[in-house]
Amino acid sequence: MSQKIRIERSKLERFCAAVFMKLGLPPDEAQDSAEILVAADARGIESHGVGRLWRYKNGLQRGIMAGGVQATVLRETPLSLVLDANGAMGLSLSKRAMTRVIGKAKTGGAAFSSVRNSNHFGIAGYYTEMAAREDMMGICMTNTAALGVPTFGRKAMFGTNPIAFSIPAHDGRKFTLDMATTVVTRGKIEVYDREQKPLPSGWAVDTRGVGTSDAHSLLEDMLYQRGGGIMPLGGEGELLSGYKGYGLAEVVDIMTAVLSGGVFGQSVIDSQATSARVCHFFAAIRLDLFRDPEDIKSDMDRLLSELENAEPAEGCERVYYAGLKEHEAESESALGGVSLSEKVAAQLRQIGEELGVPVPIAP
Amino acid sequence: MSQKIRIERSKLERFCAAVFMKLGLPPDEAQDSAEILVAADARGIESHGVGRLWRYKNGLQRGIMAGGVQATVLRETPLSLVLDANGAMGLSLSKRAMTRVIGKAKTGGAAFSSVRNSNHFGIAGYYTEMAAREDMMGICMTNTAALGVPTFGRKAMFGTNPIAFSIPAHDGRKFTLDMATTVVTRGKIEVYDREQKPLPSGWAVDTRGVGTSDAHSLLEDMLYQRGGGIMPLGGEGELLSGYKGYGLAEVVDIMTAVLSGGVFGQSVIDSQATSARVCHFFAAIRLDLFRDPEDIKSDMDRLLSELENAEPAEGCERVYYAGLKEHEAESESALGGVSLSEKVAAQLRQIGEELGVPVPIAP
Repeated sequence: MSQKIRIERSKLERFCAAVFMKLGLPPDEAQDSAEILVAADARGIESHGVGRLWRYKNGLQRGIMAGGVQATVLRETPLSLVLDANGAMGLSLSKRAMTRVIGKAKTGGAAFSSVRNSNHFGIAGYYTEMAAREDMMGICMTNTAALGVPTFGRKAMFGTNPIAFSIPAHDGRKFTLDMATTVVTRGKIEVYDREQKPLPSGWAVDTRGVGTSDAHSLLEDMLYQRGGGIMPLGGEGELLSGYKGYGLAEVVDIMTAVLSGGVFGQSVIDSQATSARVCHFFAAIRLDLFRDPEDIKSDMDRLLSELENAEPAEGCERVYYAGLKEHEAESESALGGVSLSEKVAAQLRQIGEELGVPVPIAP
Repeated sequence: MSQKIRIERSKLERFCAAVFMKLGLPPDEAQDSAEILVAADARGIESHGVGRLWRYKNGLQRGIMAGGVQATVLRETPLSLVLDANGAMGLSLSKRAMTRVIGKAKTGGAAFSSVRNSNHFGIAGYYTEMAAREDMMGICMTNTAALGVPTFGRKAMFGTNPIAFSIPAHDGRKFTLDMATTVVTRGKIEVYDREQKPLPSGWAVDTRGVGTSDAHSLLEDMLYQRGGGIMPLGGEGELLSGYKGYGLAEVVDIMTAVLSGGVFGQSVIDSQATSARVCHFFAAIRLDLFRDPEDIKSDMDRLLSELENAEPAEGCERVYYAGLKEHEAESESALGGVSLSEKVAAQLRQIGEELGVPVPIAP
């Protein structure tokens, strides 16, 4: 394990916000975008945290993303809001969309938003937890660049298409599921490639649609769109029910892109000139549509405790529920600072030097 | 393959309705229950069709289920309906609940129902397709008796907990995902036991929480609640992301049982004296909250066609989308009759003789 660096959450947010402002984002967009990126690291989800700051920097510098872009309202009802993001910053745009959805749900009981032509929005669970803090269930999805191969297929027809869901318990505890609907994401394949390890069976197929363990060829085939790709949750074929993950990935494409009139399926592609212009879905549903929120939260306390205290398998330490690891990591970050790897810290130093933003990390 | 028998759909429905009436159901409940059971066979989902008629017969005769039971409204708003089913017939009760949800959505744009203390309700996709026929998205879930073991656990803490989702395309085509959130259902384990085949890796764990291929011991351990059980979608441990299926199973428990104040988790148990009193969730969301439904259906046509025409893997014939096989089976049933196995036909003959209902199947 490489050395970890700890940094105070608010300092890291201020640094990222300053970087985003240097890159042309208005202060509110910069602040929101920083907060969402840092939230990922605070929860231990490094893959979606400030380690991606350089990507946003490149995107903004090359004009693939832009700050200050106004979204167009395509349809609005008391329960719904359909937006064309016009290529806005996915992070801050998504926070605004979920804020409006929560506002509508406060009045009407529930609300939905489908958004097209957006950009990477970070962790889906950030938005669902916004709803959970308001005694609502939150739901969030996004489609992503195509890299998933349907059951019995050989070409990528959908993205990692994550689904997130949150519901609160008492005392700040909550259940937050935030999962890609593919068996793994591209990042995991890249790790296996770097470490020159064979891919586990059930992760990916080659250009013929046949299971492959060769991470390097797979990444090249995916890059040049020659075919092959990652399996849906449940793996290859029918034995472990891969068609279920495939079906869930399609639900995400439908709720995000078909509802908003955006780009779906194999047409969702990142290129040199433009990002994939991904589509999002947000929903908030008030708990008191069903029961007294206090009663629901008490039952959630019981459900989460039963899972957390379930007897572990031989050789395993404990049973988790969705969001528990992240909840514990966030508490730790509040006490001791957000944990960053040496590699990410070095990236931040470089970005800070280039843009003339003081880095709050000792060299 | 054993011989298949074909029988006209309406005749099979009339037979089942007559059986249900002999067992004490009022005519409307008998008709609805028959229609939902037969719909499963018509779509080729034998596991949930009239092959289960004897179970309902036993349940009704032993007083575990009852006809003519009125549900209690626990909470009602323009967007929501929370019911205590009081042990009513799950099939007909669920059709009524979804009918009311669709009615509310027609007025308000969207609606949700959470139902506690119910019984088996057949195929979840039946209810979501009711919404799809009204230019809405339909969502349906149910919890079931506990048999699924959480990631890193050794005891069953959730059921097969299916999720269904439908959205219409044009010309009666639709996307219908209807999936258990466990990797397989108990029925599949029983088939492996009968055929004395070893279970595939990733399907189940034994009482220690360790992967097992022994179907017979597993079924016994599950029956006597000694521990062990079926894996969530994604299999054992983290390698194929079993925690995702586990998370989805919990979402179902939450939406069905926590929202309605019903029974969840390891407490959902079938016994000699009572059924598991499972809980359901139904939702309908109007397409025109987002765009002109015709435009959404045109995009669904394109999405479904792209998937259906995707290039198959080497050695595979074709790529499906969720609901395509069932759609084709239903068209075939309309032309040539519903297909039943010899075994199920024999069961129906026996039930007909016992209850004095003429069986519309040649001996």
